[in-house]
Amino acid sequence: MIKSFASDNWAGVCPEVMRALIDANQGHSPAYGADPHTSEAKQEFKKLFGQKAEVFFVYNGTAANIISLASNSRSFNSIICSAHAHINVDECGAGEKFAGTKLLDLPNTDGKLTTEMILPHVKADRYPHQSVPGIISITQATELGTLYTVSEIEAIADLAHKYNLILHVDGARIANAAVALNCSMKEMITDTGVDILSFGGTKNGMMFGESVVFLKPELAELFELFRKQGMQLASKMRFISAQFTALLKDNVWEKNAKHANEKAQYLGSKLAGIQEIKISQKIETNGIWAIIPKSLAEKMQNTQFFYPWDESKDEYRIMCSFDTTRDEIDQFIDTILS
Amino acid sequence: MIKSFASDNWAGVCPEVMRALIDANQGHSPAYGADPHTSEAKQEFKKLFGQKAEVFFVYNGTAANIISLASNSRSFNSIICSAHAHINVDECGAGEKFAGTKLLDLPNTDGKLTTEMILPHVKADRYPHQSVPGIISITQATELGTLYTVSEIEAIADLAHKYNLILHVDGARIANAAVALNCSMKEMITDTGVDILSFGGTKNGMMFGESVVFLKPELAELFELFRKQGMQLASKMRFISAQFTALLKDNVWEKNAKHANEKAQYLGSKLAGIQEIKISQKIETNGIWAIIPKSLAEKMQNTQFFYPWDESKDEYRIMCSFDTTRDEIDQFIDTILS
Amino acid sequence: MIKSFASDNWAGVCPEVMRALIDANQGHSPAYGADPHTSEAKQEFKKLFGQKAEVFFVYNGTAANIISLASNSRSFNSIICSAHAHINVDECGAGEKFAGTKLLDLPNTDGKLTTEMILPHVKADRYPHQSVPGIISITQATELGTLYTVSEIEAIADLAHKYNLILHVDGARIANAAVALNCSMKEMITDTGVDILSFGGTKNGMMFGESVVFLKPELAELFELFRKQGMQLASKMRFISAQFTALLKDNVWEKNAKHANEKAQYLGSKLAGIQEIKISQKIETNGIWAIIPKSLAEKMQNTQFFYPWDESKDEYRIMCSFDTTRDEIDQFIDTILS
Amino acid sequence: MIKSFASDNWAGVCPEVMRALIDANQGHSPAYGADPHTSEAKQEFKKLFGQKAEVFFVYNGTAANIISLASNSRSFNSIICSAHAHINVDECGAGEKFAGTKLLDLPNTDGKLTTEMILPHVKADRYPHQSVPGIISITQATELGTLYTVSEIEAIADLAHKYNLILHVDGARIANAAVALNCSMKEMITDTGVDILSFGGTKNGMMFGESVVFLKPELAELFELFRKQGMQLASKMRFISAQFTALLKDNVWEKNAKHANEKAQYLGSKLAGIQEIKISQKIETNGIWAIIPKSLAEKMQNTQFFYPWDESKDEYRIMCSFDTTRDEIDQFIDTILS
Repeated sequence: MIKSFASDNWAGVCPEVMRALIDANQGHSPAYGADPHTSEAKQEFKKLFGQKAEVFFVYNGTAANIISLASNSRSFNSIICSAHAHINVDECGAGEKFAGTKLLDLPNTDGKLTTEMILPHVKADRYPHQSVPGIISITQATELGTLYTVSEIEAIADLAHKYNLILHVDGARIANAAVALNCSMKEMITDTGVDILSFGGTKNGMMFGESVVFLKPELAELFELFRKQGMQLASKMRFISAQFTALLKDNVWEKNAKHANEKAQYLGSKLAGIQEIKISQKIETNGIWAIIPKSLAEKMQNTQFFYPWDESKDEYRIMCSFDTTRDEIDQFIDTILS
Repeated sequence: MIKSFASDNWAGVCPEVMRALIDANQGHSPAYGADPHTSEAKQEFKKLFGQKAEVFFVYNGTAANIISLASNSRSFNSIICSAHAHINVDECGAGEKFAGTKLLDLPNTDGKLTTEMILPHVKADRYPHQSVPGIISITQATELGTLYTVSEIEAIADLAHKYNLILHVDGARIANAAVALNCSMKEMITDTGVDILSFGGTKNGMMFGESVVFLKPELAELFELFRKQGMQLASKMRFISAQFTALLKDNVWEKNAKHANEKAQYLGSKLAGIQEIKISQKIETNGIWAIIPKSLAEKMQNTQFFYPWDESKDEYRIMCSFDTTRDEIDQFIDTILS
Repeated sequence: MIKSFASDNWAGVCPEVMRALIDANQGHSPAYGADPHTSEAKQEFKKLFGQKAEVFFVYNGTAANIISLASNSRSFNSIICSAHAHINVDECGAGEKFAGTKLLDLPNTDGKLTTEMILPHVKADRYPHQSVPGIISITQATELGTLYTVSEIEAIADLAHKYNLILHVDGARIANAAVALNCSMKEMITDTGVDILSFGGTKNGMMFGESVVFLKPELAELFELFRKQGMQLASKMRFISAQFTALLKDNVWEKNAKHANEKAQYLGSKLAGIQEIKISQKIETNGIWAIIPKSLAEKMQNTQFFYPWDESKDEYRIMCSFDTTRDEIDQFIDTILS
Repeated sequence: MIKSFASDNWAGVCPEVMRALIDANQGHSPAYGADPHTSEAKQEFKKLFGQKAEVFFVYNGTAANIISLASNSRSFNSIICSAHAHINVDECGAGEKFAGTKLLDLPNTDGKLTTEMILPHVKADRYPHQSVPGIISITQATELGTLYTVSEIEAIADLAHKYNLILHVDGARIANAAVALNCSMKEMITDTGVDILSFGGTKNGMMFGESVVFLKPELAELFELFRKQGMQLASKMRFISAQFTALLKDNVWEKNAKHANEKAQYLGSKLAGIQEIKISQKIETNGIWAIIPKSLAEKMQNTQFFYPWDESKDEYRIMCSFDTTRDEIDQFIDTILS
């Protein structure tokens, strides 16, 4: 299959990760994470987020989000999130089912929550009739490709903690965010006061596997039990761990994210120059949202497939990944212009 | 790390599977299973189980079991299983949590249920006070390494269907069972009337991934929704599918299982010859259960680690895998005798 | 305690119901609903809703709503409701916990959904990523005291059925609605195509107990099992049933509802004449929503307590019940004017 | 309907309770437990169990058990109980569904657990694979009418606390137990170290309503939220509370329980004298378990109905209640002998 702009999870595995998988396949290794590869990967995470960070691996992003939320809430809690949040619209109710909690989804236009939006919801009315807010979950980069600044994250963390709430970040594309903001993971996450981060691996070039980074170790206490009960304890875990080490060790995660972001900028600038196309969200990471007349969109999709986002507005999403090339973009643009 | 007799999931990935992973890493491929590798793997399963078989992939065995059970039961149901069943004692209550059902676990000495054991439990007393039996789940090979014969499976299937119950088989080591029984998957599973099979890949040489085989297509209708809600929909699914194709295409699954079973026979025969050691379960597949004096066991574990099974009886479990060698066994035995 | 305008559930039990409780307390009666009082009450419901109606009793309104919804949905479903719906904001996440479903709550200003609001949500996008709409739940009378007309209910039922959805009506105050619309239960519910009705008893003068009326008997099949598992099977059920018979037999439900509605009209007309007070919702049943300056409201609350509704707007809710008297209202108004 | 020996929940309401319901029906009272009747009832419980006891009311015994267990466990926990426990066999999986926990049910012949039975199960093997024991739940009087002595309860409490487990007592018939043991509630429950008690009201002469008594106040912290989410918050709660006050105030609970127990002794002694009948459990409270030839049993059931208990053994259960009379028993015996 030729490449596409459908999603960064249509891409395969980056070479460094594939190399690591081959190398990890030596002899026997204790199952369920009691192996040296897992210890090594955890150390790499500590280098990135600080020594207090506790890290666990799961198979995918849905699990990273839901199990970290479930292990830090009770069923009577609510979880405050964006109406666009992946946990709200793309996990088929996994949160409601596994955590038993209510998702309190707030409307917004760019995928971002502000402290003003959140404030009216931080306390439950009418105890014990209303679900009790327990966690704020934001996505960085958002489901609309936009970014929270470091100080915006800090402000939300402060609000959360003022009301004894936990701040969770869905970081399925956290690498793209860090590169775009030109800051370290520690500055963006640890130092702002984020409590729990779902750190994405798959969309950054891994075959499978995501991690949960607890910045406050006490929040990690029940995670292993919920991970097992949540069907997400990998027996041959070394093969997740080795991938993460490959991404983290020589900043491969940065290289991959930077590549994807730059290609989105390049493609975005080309698309912006086409009169019939209207860019509809700020291009801050590796995705482009654009209003495209249906007939033109179909022509483009026939060259390189991408998804409609909001059909009522003729809005589409075009994603770049770690392996998108400038040539593919040029060829794509040529099709449009031809 | 040197090899061990701890578990077949301490082993790595067999060469054919690793080759397939490398080969599958070409360009982009639709996510979530809409890719050619997944279609191909499903065809391989149909060859093995018959054209009616519907197959889905998940990350691990817990999920294969729990999601297939949950998507074919309601929370008021009970699931009849062996007290030794993995779903009963090794999944941290995943069934109770995700399906909401009661596990009706029946005591036994060899991991096997009989129709006599099951019969008193097939109907609920005192509607609506008691959970309503919905599914019988057996494990093949069992958690104690023993086997159901083809006709035993058939008898349980007949009983199940007589009372409108579904028969599920946890086949984490189904390959070892088929090889040991010297029958085809179709003879053991499809033709006996099994309704749903969790088909194990990881313990047979895969890196990750298990499949659920629905022999009655109508039982598969809700699986995809429960899989997604159960956090088990792999985005880069081609990398599970390609592994299964590698196992199934040239009967690699048979080769791997046969190897592990033979090594267990070889090791078992050696251990049986040692006076202080008493083999405690029939050696039918790739595991050996044995009563070993603690001091001897410790000496053995220092050579090649293996797990205690029931400490109250000094019973241990010793597992062979697709990569266990005759040399390793000889060396292990030498240690004991030295 | 003196009476109040706090809620119709601050009222006690109407005389006919208390009489029925005393009368039902004769000798022994089979438990769990297999008693003659329960049969009799079910017959009374059939007279009201038609012979096909299947009726079950539970303890309270939360259970009537949640158990009827749960027994007719799967966890991957979503339930479309008003953002103001009791199931959304006043049941502490009981729906999410017990049914495992997502509540898809739609914003509105008067407590009512329209077909236009519902239409964009009747089908799931991106199978299997998004929760699949299964049920539309509306409240009659709404949580803001407003009413759906008979033809509005019919339009929503038609829309529901066109998309294979079930229409549920939360009728905690269904009696007040029927009286206000001057139509029979059959015209409002059975003939419009409603599938399931939670029929309120407590707010209409009962001590405890609500019923679920299934207008399509096939939707009732699993209710008894879910009711038991949902902890809502009353052992001495005759004492719920006898209350319902008392309400239904001589149209006591109409008398009680009419009384409460009339008192709300009377009180509303008085309040509307006071310059500082602004009625904020149409007074259609037994509640009044009004904007009242805080100091005046406090003075009023000291006479007869009532609840703030939306403190950000100085909006209050004032409820009448089956036992509110004209004297109490006059006295309340005198306080305001004094 | 004439009376029966079917169950103490076929009986109606004792006069003191009915009187209290009538008396409580005066004017308005705050909903959801913020009323004076509820405060009064809670004080009565404190007199019985000590000032530290925190008490909450629910509708029925299933809820008293399940919500107290759920609010003091996490889904990865297991709850150790008797195989005969009501929570295990008579609540249609409510525990598994609402708490998400595994029930670890231990076989026994008389409904009672011993510390010897419990000890092997107090710790989880193989973290995080096995559910983690969190609570021990025993029933007093048991589902077979037998009793734990005060020192047996104390021994189980000590074991529980040694392993950081909570001891819950299902006291659906706790009144019958206290009377039979001739001890105070405080001696049997508070002083032995029980942590949580489900205190039964319905089988002791109430119309509906059970209570949960937390002997350690810190275990009560989340109960109100779980009760609301568990659909068990009564709006007109005064009508549960007033019943409990009626039972507790003048020791009506003792009178009712003593009456039922004495009648069981009387009936038991008569039955024991009939050659064809074999009493099969010790008669310690208000129930009799007996082996009766089927033809004789049918004749007896036609006079006064009672339930088969274990049809494989021709075992039946015959229950007395607070309103069983000596005349009814004599007449019943006459039938047998005629």
